[in-house]
Amino acid sequence: MKQSEIGPVNDCVIGVVGLGVMGANLALNLASNLREPIAAYDINAANVQRLVEGHPDLSLKGAASLNDFVSSLTSPRVVLLMVPAGPPVDVVTDELLGLLHEGDLIIDGGNSHYKDTQERVERCKSRGILFLGMGVSGGEQGALLGPALMAGGDPAVWEVIQPIFEPIAALAGDDLPCVALVGSGASGHFTKMVHNGIEYADLQLIGEAYALLRATGRTAAQAGEIFAQWNVGDDRSYLLDSVEQVLLMDDALGSGSLIDAVSCAAKGKGTGAWTVIAGAELGMSVSIIAEALFARSVSSARDERDAWLLQHEIIAKPVDLPIETVRDAYLAARLLAYQQGMTLLAAASNNYGWDVRLEDVVRIWRAGCIIRAGFLDKVRGIYQKEDATDLFVTDPAFYEQIIAGYAPLQEVSKAAAISSVHLPSTSAALNHLIALRSRTLPTALVQLLRDYFGAHTFERTDLPGSFHVSWESDRQIRKQ
Amino acid sequence: MKQSEIGPVNDCVIGVVGLGVMGANLALNLASNLREPIAAYDINAANVQRLVEGHPDLSLKGAASLNDFVSSLTSPRVVLLMVPAGPPVDVVTDELLGLLHEGDLIIDGGNSHYKDTQERVERCKSRGILFLGMGVSGGEQGALLGPALMAGGDPAVWEVIQPIFEPIAALAGDDLPCVALVGSGASGHFTKMVHNGIEYADLQLIGEAYALLRATGRTAAQAGEIFAQWNVGDDRSYLLDSVEQVLLMDDALGSGSLIDAVSCAAKGKGTGAWTVIAGAELGMSVSIIAEALFARSVSSARDERDAWLLQHEIIAKPVDLPIETVRDAYLAARLLAYQQGMTLLAAASNNYGWDVRLEDVVRIWRAGCIIRAGFLDKVRGIYQKEDATDLFVTDPAFYEQIIAGYAPLQEVSKAAAISSVHLPSTSAALNHLIALRSRTLPTALVQLLRDYFGAHTFERTDLPGSFHVSWESDRQIRKQ
Repeated sequence: MKQSEIGPVNDCVIGVVGLGVMGANLALNLASNLREPIAAYDINAANVQRLVEGHPDLSLKGAASLNDFVSSLTSPRVVLLMVPAGPPVDVVTDELLGLLHEGDLIIDGGNSHYKDTQERVERCKSRGILFLGMGVSGGEQGALLGPALMAGGDPAVWEVIQPIFEPIAALAGDDLPCVALVGSGASGHFTKMVHNGIEYADLQLIGEAYALLRATGRTAAQAGEIFAQWNVGDDRSYLLDSVEQVLLMDDALGSGSLIDAVSCAAKGKGTGAWTVIAGAELGMSVSIIAEALFARSVSSARDERDAWLLQHEIIAKPVDLPIETVRDAYLAARLLAYQQGMTLLAAASNNYGWDVRLEDVVRIWRAGCIIRAGFLDKVRGIYQKEDATDLFVTDPAFYEQIIAGYAPLQEVSKAAAISSVHLPSTSAALNHLIALRSRTLPTALVQLLRDYFGAHTFERTDLPGSFHVSWESDRQIRKQ
Repeated sequence: MKQSEIGPVNDCVIGVVGLGVMGANLALNLASNLREPIAAYDINAANVQRLVEGHPDLSLKGAASLNDFVSSLTSPRVVLLMVPAGPPVDVVTDELLGLLHEGDLIIDGGNSHYKDTQERVERCKSRGILFLGMGVSGGEQGALLGPALMAGGDPAVWEVIQPIFEPIAALAGDDLPCVALVGSGASGHFTKMVHNGIEYADLQLIGEAYALLRATGRTAAQAGEIFAQWNVGDDRSYLLDSVEQVLLMDDALGSGSLIDAVSCAAKGKGTGAWTVIAGAELGMSVSIIAEALFARSVSSARDERDAWLLQHEIIAKPVDLPIETVRDAYLAARLLAYQQGMTLLAAASNNYGWDVRLEDVVRIWRAGCIIRAGFLDKVRGIYQKEDATDLFVTDPAFYEQIIAGYAPLQEVSKAAAISSVHLPSTSAALNHLIALRSRTLPTALVQLLRDYFGAHTFERTDLPGSFHVSWESDRQIRKQ
């Protein structure tokens, strides 16, 4: 480490703690684009050394201790934590609380759970330190070249962080940088969690569309070309682009397409589960995301699947579906998955008092992140309207596409049921839309049964108030 | 209050704190069946007075204070808490910790979250007090006449609580009482939560079968009679019995059947959400339960549904399905919902080290509780086998019924998709079964995409280990 670069001169506008791949790449991105000295610290000195010595052209100030690190920052000090989510964040935060001054700022750029962030915001606030949760999307390459940055916290910090993060964020087509303070409190990390929940759903929906295309007799490569054809105009997305790349990959370790050798046992890193948990806690349906999560769970339930396969394996039968039907069902289901995510985010904002600006959320999802998609420009336009609600899919700009996708959703669900193609998220999307568009639902009977065995009361469609039947005595229906 | 009944004579084998309807009925049940003095206390003295004075024939010892209450108990003191779940349980527990002696026992009979119970077990253990969570099912009538009691905790307490609770529990057909210490730790409350999760699923599946029957042109009363025909032999259940009662009820405040005036906006009390959350946390698919939960959520999403209904209401088209098809699909889906619940319970037991005996769980679900059903005798027999796993549906006793239900599940899913009948839980059941019986799933593509954008690696079907493609550089497939 060049000792000359560690010293008392406090000229760094921001410092990064935690120099794993994501932290190191963000530090390089900051040093390259801010053209200001950037402080860097890691508990492992070798990581500091590697970063600083590997980039002599950049003004990276490696620090030998957290104390030196803090000393090198201009006031108000801005510390970007890129340490693993969980206890490490608390350990470093506690250390920093002993070194920072009132008005200084800690930004957690890890994939922390929003409830942990909420606690840290409160803990730091009591010491006069501002704590921000900031979701970082785009993976290693995004961190280096332009991520989407979803920050949440006290509105006053925007003027501090704007000049630091706007130059390093991804740029959307209209050159607006993909960074925002989307709301207060833990809304940044909640927004990143919802982003990942939508990602779970879109990945699964793509997988299901692919399974349908294969069931029509097409090869993996042909399916890849079909996805490429869908990837145009408002419908284009990073994941549609990715799927083409992935399906055209040959299997150098075997023969044919790589996808045909890939195990379906899928894993996750938690944020999909967190999204489903948040939906359950807040009473919001995230059924498409939940089916995507549970599809991964069941795919990895090796013992249970082996027990069934041994006794009664089924082979999907060929399906006869026009490509356009598969496409239109996929596109409608994808819009509904995004809507479930946005509705959850709006409910959380309302519940926690975060004042999340959905317009900003979709604006910064237009580049840099995994769920970037062409239609988000239109969603942003809808959220910019004066009388905007969180429901973009009922706006004329979208509902026609959804309505046009309704018959295709019916067609693919029917075909999958007949042919034994696994289609849980697409089926959930169809059922979600049926629920939204139907005046009455099977839950009416659920309510009456709950009144029967648990005296939970029910509402009527024709009279206000709650009602209960004294089922075991005079069987009268009484308003409660 | 009869002062004579409050005094220093410590001859009560158990006392109940919290004399709401459930607590009062359990106290009455205990006093009637144990023929021993029962202590009773409530923070509201009027509740104590009402209970004691209303039942002069029973030996109920009303206490004027928690101190008097504890003094009236024989050693080891057994206190049954029937206070509202949440902070009240902690408040009373903390008070009791100051009054009880080492070896005494607190039993929480409320619907507490299992994680709260886990904390209370630890807190009390450090003071030498045993804390048990005990799920009580059967509602007000069950509490009075015979509930199902799902206790969890230190195995040593069984000899203390067995003589107290066996006489008051519901009796199964073989006269075995529906009470057990199902495992250690918080397993009692977790078991009750899973019970309620399965209840969510069965209620929704019944609602969906009903919607299908109505779509075939039958009236509510005709549907009720059909459910009655299904309610025989191993297939019979308390909920099938209930649905007949409920569908035959006329609407005295309107005309026709009551169900036709009931709003479908459904509510819940939390345990369904907890089950879905537990599934998400433990990586276990509870898709049928989740769709039941989210069906309630979306049914109550008034603004969103109104926005859609205004623009594009759909009316379900008639369906043409044999009654037997609807029945066989329902019965198979119901078995799969129970299996999802049992699989979750087994995973939790494994994760938390609770040593839950699934055999005991299904034994005590055979009477008294909402999800009691004829087939649970057979499930118990399977769990009694030496080489039993948690998978009862793959046992020959069940898999033929499930396999026979497969084509009906396909038929109803297809018919519902075409006709716009809301069938989320049944569709989830079909998709769950497809996942279990298929050698490969759409999640294979999910895994390859995750490797593409996030370097998350993937497994192969033909080679051991984890693999990664260097997509952006030499595009080689390397073992990690």
